Amino acid sequence: MKIAIVTTGDEIMSGNVVDTNSAWIADKCWMLGHEVVWHGGVGDYKEGIGDACVLASERAEIVFVSGGLGATLDDITLESAAAAFGKKMIGGKPLENKVGTAPGVQVKLGKAVFFFLPGVPRELYQIFEDSILPLLKEMAGGGIYRQKFLRCFGLPEASLDERLKGLDFGGVRVSFRVTYPEVKIKLVARKEKTVTGDKWLVISEAEKKIRERIGDYVFGVDDETMEAAAGNLLKKKKMTIAVAESCTGGYISNLITNVAGSSEWFERGVISYSNKSKMEILGVKAETIKKYGAVSEECTREMAEGVLKISGAGIGLSVTGVAGPSGGTEGKPVGTVHIALATHDETRHISCCHPRPREQFKMLTAYEALDMVRRL
Amino acid sequence: MKIAIVTTGDEIMSGNVVDTNSAWIADKCWMLGHEVVWHGGVGDYKEGIGDACVLASERAEIVFVSGGLGATLDDITLESAAAAFGKKMIGGKPLENKVGTAPGVQVKLGKAVFFFLPGVPRELYQIFEDSILPLLKEMAGGGIYRQKFLRCFGLPEASLDERLKGLDFGGVRVSFRVTYPEVKIKLVARKEKTVTGDKWLVISEAEKKIRERIGDYVFGVDDETMEAAAGNLLKKKKMTIAVAESCTGGYISNLITNVAGSSEWFERGVISYSNKSKMEILGVKAETIKKYGAVSEECTREMAEGVLKISGAGIGLSVTGVAGPSGGTEGKPVGTVHIALATHDETRHISCCHPRPREQFKMLTAYEALDMVRRL
Repeated sequence: MKIAIVTTGDEIMSGNVVDTNSAWIADKCWMLGHEVVWHGGVGDYKEGIGDACVLASERAEIVFVSGGLGATLDDITLESAAAAFGKKMIGGKPLENKVGTAPGVQVKLGKAVFFFLPGVPRELYQIFEDSILPLLKEMAGGGIYRQKFLRCFGLPEASLDERLKGLDFGGVRVSFRVTYPEVKIKLVARKEKTVTGDKWLVISEAEKKIRERIGDYVFGVDDETMEAAAGNLLKKKKMTIAVAESCTGGYISNLITNVAGSSEWFERGVISYSNKSKMEILGVKAETIKKYGAVSEECTREMAEGVLKISGAGIGLSVTGVAGPSGGTEGKPVGTVHIALATHDETRHISCCHPRPREQFKMLTAYEALDMVRRL
Repeated sequence: MKIAIVTTGDEIMSGNVVDTNSAWIADKCWMLGHEVVWHGGVGDYKEGIGDACVLASERAEIVFVSGGLGATLDDITLESAAAAFGKKMIGGKPLENKVGTAPGVQVKLGKAVFFFLPGVPRELYQIFEDSILPLLKEMAGGGIYRQKFLRCFGLPEASLDERLKGLDFGGVRVSFRVTYPEVKIKLVARKEKTVTGDKWLVISEAEKKIRERIGDYVFGVDDETMEAAAGNLLKKKKMTIAVAESCTGGYISNLITNVAGSSEWFERGVISYSNKSKMEILGVKAETIKKYGAVSEECTREMAEGVLKISGAGIGLSVTGVAGPSGGTEGKPVGTVHIALATHDETRHISCCHPRPREQFKMLTAYEALDMVRRL
């Protein structure tokens, strides 16, 4: 069905708050085969709200209005909408609000069914999921969609696109979504009944074809982060890891410890920011730093082997580099980074250069380091 | 002047992408005394775009349209708008795009001045700032606003509100914005010419009154983060810090090293996740862990004193706690945290309990730890 969304609120119109409710609602509707055809936004004034509601009702069969349902003076959405449709007040069906005070309201106005919802996201989500989603599912008439994300790292969008060229996905819609530094491949399929009862066959078929082309650049699916992907493998192999970070300053350890249960496989981390700490804790030789510098393959290798040795973990991971904005030299420009991975058998090393803003540099380097762990 | 914004794009209407451009534009307009009165959003189809442009031109004097300016097939914004206003094509003034391919366009359609802009945020920002802001400033006619944020930590919004009760801010608009775990106090003042030439007198007067009431709960202004506030003080006092983290897993060190130039005052970090690492690197006594546990005042104090000793820094900071979701006990529930700060003179300690999701727990704990540094 055709859907319109109306957002009300001075805080949205003045740019004080970014409207995330509309995208959230649109995503839910789209997944059920409904189409959002119109979006209107107005401040907290009667004529504006009325105007937006009337326009929406002329363009869609279902209208969601968010904001202005509370008890304060500027909560005038219901009376404004009523006035615009020539009514004294809205006499609709209340929709229970379990996490806030103002209930939602469902009512027919003009040719459209209106759902009035609070502007506070968690209240809107709860009412939508409990009271509205079931209705939308019924109205969808079987045209339900399902999606899956394949999360990739190490190839840019253009290269992934190139690799997938010419593939027939059998009705599955394939698109890319870049969430730096990842590229997510989004697969969307319509629900279809088959004789075998396997309703989502098409999505797994398309996934298989994609994986054949891009192989292990896919590190996870849906909510699986890079740190969880690496962690799950370590857990499975019953291995532990210790990390020595310089330029990433704790970012890698922070990602790892965001994973619940990471204490099973994360032994310790050392943020050896100063040369002194590299030598004292990790046993990097003064001579190495003097000869090659702290940002060098030699130093990184000693850091990885050092943290492996002192921790008794199965893997030692290390990074050192020039995060910038200053500190770069001709031979080692801002963005230079060395990563090493030591096990009891071998020490691997890679180096790269990412001249990017400080936080992006840290994030990208962390992904590369964790990807080395995953590939190992 | 009255302003309308039209957002085009299937990716926005389907909820694939959150529209942040509108809030960005609205904020810029609002700061110059213009008012955004209308927002319309439509997908990439001709009739929809035309409809939205006409509606916008009837409601505002200036209309910004974003998206659909490129060279691909679904970039049909200009032709759709032209058709809606009975024209064959848009013959407007091009606005230089320095970071992308498609230029913006300025043109009068109906009663309004239209600015067509690319949907890619950084391209939109550049064109807006270079070509449109100067025009908006002229049109503002002196009604320019200025804002300042006072960033607070340690008091909830309600308490801050209570403390500010009864104050006369002399025409400055004061509001709160919660960005967990901070509360920002936003001060907005209109530009006013005074005999002394001090045009923004009112904002500094209001700031002074606010600071008298809430004192050192204000840790920074505008873009100054908690880690920068603590870091600036350390830099000023020429002191260095070393950090020993358990439950925050590198989050504190990561925040600190996000500050450019932090290598001047951040000596090292130790993420002593395992008990073994607490004893081996920091010299925490086995007896202490056995008797009081790793999450205890005693252990935290030894960690802070240990990292102070091995690093030679001026301050040793440590945290240990139960991040959850599992690992809690009756005496030490999930969310329990101990923080210690050691100098060569004394060791301070605080403990608290924040039963929150893992990442929020880490963030809040990091703020509390850095706030201890700042207050010291």
